[in-house]
Amino acid sequence: MPDFQSILRTIYNSATSQIEKGRVATYIPELAKIDINNFGICLKIVGGESFGVGSFNTPFSIQSISKVLALAKAIELVGESIWKRIDVEPSGHPFNQLALLEVENGIPRNPFINSGAIVIADILLSNLKDPKTDFLNFVRDLCGVDDINYNTSVALSEKHTGFKNYAAANLLKSFNNLENDVEDVLDFYFHQCSLEMTCSQLSNTFYFLANDGYCLKNKLRLTRSQVKRINALMLTCGFYDEAGEFAFEVGLPGKSGVGGGIVALLPNNFILTTWAPGLNKKGNSLLGMTALEQFTTNTKLSIF
Amino acid sequence: MPDFQSILRTIYNSATSQIEKGRVATYIPELAKIDINNFGICLKIVGGESFGVGSFNTPFSIQSISKVLALAKAIELVGESIWKRIDVEPSGHPFNQLALLEVENGIPRNPFINSGAIVIADILLSNLKDPKTDFLNFVRDLCGVDDINYNTSVALSEKHTGFKNYAAANLLKSFNNLENDVEDVLDFYFHQCSLEMTCSQLSNTFYFLANDGYCLKNKLRLTRSQVKRINALMLTCGFYDEAGEFAFEVGLPGKSGVGGGIVALLPNNFILTTWAPGLNKKGNSLLGMTALEQFTTNTKLSIF
Amino acid sequence: MPDFQSILRTIYNSATSQIEKGRVATYIPELAKIDINNFGICLKIVGGESFGVGSFNTPFSIQSISKVLALAKAIELVGESIWKRIDVEPSGHPFNQLALLEVENGIPRNPFINSGAIVIADILLSNLKDPKTDFLNFVRDLCGVDDINYNTSVALSEKHTGFKNYAAANLLKSFNNLENDVEDVLDFYFHQCSLEMTCSQLSNTFYFLANDGYCLKNKLRLTRSQVKRINALMLTCGFYDEAGEFAFEVGLPGKSGVGGGIVALLPNNFILTTWAPGLNKKGNSLLGMTALEQFTTNTKLSIF
Amino acid sequence: MPDFQSILRTIYNSATSQIEKGRVATYIPELAKIDINNFGICLKIVGGESFGVGSFNTPFSIQSISKVLALAKAIELVGESIWKRIDVEPSGHPFNQLALLEVENGIPRNPFINSGAIVIADILLSNLKDPKTDFLNFVRDLCGVDDINYNTSVALSEKHTGFKNYAAANLLKSFNNLENDVEDVLDFYFHQCSLEMTCSQLSNTFYFLANDGYCLKNKLRLTRSQVKRINALMLTCGFYDEAGEFAFEVGLPGKSGVGGGIVALLPNNFILTTWAPGLNKKGNSLLGMTALEQFTTNTKLSIF
Repeated sequence: MPDFQSILRTIYNSATSQIEKGRVATYIPELAKIDINNFGICLKIVGGESFGVGSFNTPFSIQSISKVLALAKAIELVGESIWKRIDVEPSGHPFNQLALLEVENGIPRNPFINSGAIVIADILLSNLKDPKTDFLNFVRDLCGVDDINYNTSVALSEKHTGFKNYAAANLLKSFNNLENDVEDVLDFYFHQCSLEMTCSQLSNTFYFLANDGYCLKNKLRLTRSQVKRINALMLTCGFYDEAGEFAFEVGLPGKSGVGGGIVALLPNNFILTTWAPGLNKKGNSLLGMTALEQFTTNTKLSIF
Repeated sequence: MPDFQSILRTIYNSATSQIEKGRVATYIPELAKIDINNFGICLKIVGGESFGVGSFNTPFSIQSISKVLALAKAIELVGESIWKRIDVEPSGHPFNQLALLEVENGIPRNPFINSGAIVIADILLSNLKDPKTDFLNFVRDLCGVDDINYNTSVALSEKHTGFKNYAAANLLKSFNNLENDVEDVLDFYFHQCSLEMTCSQLSNTFYFLANDGYCLKNKLRLTRSQVKRINALMLTCGFYDEAGEFAFEVGLPGKSGVGGGIVALLPNNFILTTWAPGLNKKGNSLLGMTALEQFTTNTKLSIF
Repeated sequence: MPDFQSILRTIYNSATSQIEKGRVATYIPELAKIDINNFGICLKIVGGESFGVGSFNTPFSIQSISKVLALAKAIELVGESIWKRIDVEPSGHPFNQLALLEVENGIPRNPFINSGAIVIADILLSNLKDPKTDFLNFVRDLCGVDDINYNTSVALSEKHTGFKNYAAANLLKSFNNLENDVEDVLDFYFHQCSLEMTCSQLSNTFYFLANDGYCLKNKLRLTRSQVKRINALMLTCGFYDEAGEFAFEVGLPGKSGVGGGIVALLPNNFILTTWAPGLNKKGNSLLGMTALEQFTTNTKLSIF
Repeated sequence: MPDFQSILRTIYNSATSQIEKGRVATYIPELAKIDINNFGICLKIVGGESFGVGSFNTPFSIQSISKVLALAKAIELVGESIWKRIDVEPSGHPFNQLALLEVENGIPRNPFINSGAIVIADILLSNLKDPKTDFLNFVRDLCGVDDINYNTSVALSEKHTGFKNYAAANLLKSFNNLENDVEDVLDFYFHQCSLEMTCSQLSNTFYFLANDGYCLKNKLRLTRSQVKRINALMLTCGFYDEAGEFAFEVGLPGKSGVGGGIVALLPNNFILTTWAPGLNKKGNSLLGMTALEQFTTNTKLSIF
């Protein structure tokens, strides 16, 4: 087995010495306050140890990474029927997501673009008794800790500025692809995105996706086939319009968030989570992308 | 001068004998209740008489026809500066209005597509003291009567089902092309569209656009140049994606509404208003289009 | 009657004193050689005199202005059946004409965008015995002179660089909306566009469109209704993506070409042709647009 | 090790008993003649045996599968510089490929959509001495046999009907993203696509992509990193607009062709080639997709 702690350390040192660190997301005012110098990495080996460097125990806003967890919960609740309301294809265009939704009659391209995640939020809202609490408990249970929480000021911040999400939700509603009220769906969605977790917690939470559906507690959460599908979706759609580039450079299923987090995994091998708040032009963590690329290049561990 | 009363009568008889009457708009539930057999025509000669046949004195929901009046009021209030926020080109695509708005950075193609009219509503909201009352008085004053009113149940009906308009308004807001709150702008916009007027009242109200800016009371409302521009816009953009067809078949500036009304005019000659609630596939009044085409063909009165 | 000669002179002086003259089209190498200081205006009164200033007797490449003449010939040959293969709506988007053609299954938006004009060229090719000669004779006959010719080096120049037209023609062919070979259609089309005419000749040639279908020789070329349709199309689609702006600023049916020519007309009143090779950003003659706008503003002669 | 021969036999029997076999591609007239009942599967284990069932030794038109081989040759010749002219992202839209190319200034989304493959063909044309012969030898050498050939009547058939490819190539040319003449590039491209190979030959030819760049003869053809990139591209872009679905259902990098062939592979494990000429609605082999999905489900061998 490679000396993972030493590999992470090398990557950490190399990445932090980079001058160009990207730019912190400013469209959610609360996120703009984060110190760009944060950088953490946590590697969890399936059936083995964990390794961490830097601020891997500092909580950050997981944002779109939550879409994977929401999708998993929705599949757990209602199974494959969700695919009647959402497609599984890459979205292609970054610049006209509403256009695509309009042309394709309100069926979002996949569950990881905003419109698709809003449909998933609608499904959770319809199928959970106490949606915010139940979803929080689902994540805590996967992670094995009790102190994961929503950041309500981040959620509120999005609520006041998330006009594109309101536009998407209303467009979905006009195509009868939302069951609940726009306000209720987005309130849940903004809370879901505001979850704060550490690199270490994220690696633990995503464990079941690298372990054939069995979570850290060795409890079966989803079938092997369902897990395979989520991983396939992360690979093809997990990085906005940089999904192809990520598959190409890194070669792992993964999901990024504008809070600067990235979770990536190699089935039956490991989960690797990074956090660095500076984003590249496509909205993915700049240091995180570099670190992941170096890790798979150095270790030759990728799906390809 | 032709015998206009007799011409209108002939057109009326010919049109009402048509079996195919189109379909009443159903997307606003309140409008779905209207009797499809209504049909009225009112012709007002500039500097001359008025002629009417059928239900030309029955009030109906003017809907998008109100966009011309809102545009006129906005120009009266703030002049040419409105064109910084709205373009003057035909929209081309019916099937992806949000797409266009997205690609063109939140600048609506023209003031007669919904997104453009929402920007106009925002301008009125920012520049009128008591927007709903002031706008109503503007219309009443142009028309010369006091009993024109909003239909609040129609306005409310749109508010509960107008998800595409909410999507458009939020998209405009995301591009900083709305100053006021989405809810406030749309509340005003839905009221504006819910105005109820008769064919006769509409012909009188639009008089100033056929009379170099002077309204029925001979008061100058807009400059000759401003009037010319509004007429040009009606010709190129007044009939959704059937604007070219209307210019082609009828050859008059005009504006239709999903309530089944159409106002058309020949500058310095006449204003011709029709109302028949059955719509063709493109959302314009079927009998109204036929009547207007027959009128310009019979009388050879068109701008071309 | 206004003193038209003096009005033209004033406009000419004012326009030529403008410092910004636009840019000569360079995408057809032959056109790039033209002196940008050329400027001519010719006004032909229906049933009356002609007036000219500047280089109104200098031949220039009429380019897209020829599309109106080709359309007229196609209607003369096969009547309204052409509208099965071409629509009559403004194209909206400048930036994705092929996109539009692709989404709309190979039916061009109107006969004045390139794809539409290529379909018209295909119709002429199928219905004329000796297409190039017959079309040339049609134009000469309308104009009343024998010395109008194609510029074969301009036609050849387009043939070697007109890749977008080849793309459009092949796309039309893939939708079965071209009967003849792509090469043959484009050879004819490039020749048609290469016609060289003077402002004076163009005003005479377009006479029938301002005179209810009767050409200068008082011969009926098209029905009143057909003429009305062509005029409506020029108004809504004659100026690329600046059609709305032109209707708005000038208020006349017209057609421009990248050679710097513009023909505009007021039915039953006049034909006004300008030529100035410098183009604005939208591809229309900069001085020509200014001159036309000043003419309609000064004389208050427009359709609105 | 599983009993692969028996697994293939089971899949073969199950798939051939399906009533719905899809439809043979008809847009290339030569391909329309193929018997829809052909069905072959060939599995090649890395460092091990080969297994075959059905018509796995019958040559068929590999069509778009050739795009992977052309890409490999282009990378071998000019390295990573090809990515200046082609992107690596999924294309998203099936219905408007030219639209995308137009909006994105002539840079194809990836090397496996037609426009991207045409750019690759242009690169080969510029960098091979005798392009058709050299490319054929490259494929023969990878495969280890001498009797692979172009089918010139298929190539010619495409040349006479491939109008969309002509449209794409001309559009690329208009954006200066083709160095050679459209005719020459497409002549080479249509020949490349017309290659005829058997399932068995394809499995052998693609061996280097499953073997870290080493071909069957144990010769290094591309670096490990280059191979990883090609595999990533096959996963994200190898199945037209069904790429997401394939990753989701099958979970292997692969490439399909309208001739009914599919090559898929699991790095360091196996290459699996299927051939069944009946296509599903998205243009991928119906029985082939089923067979691959059953294989990865039964064996639990996939990248996810």
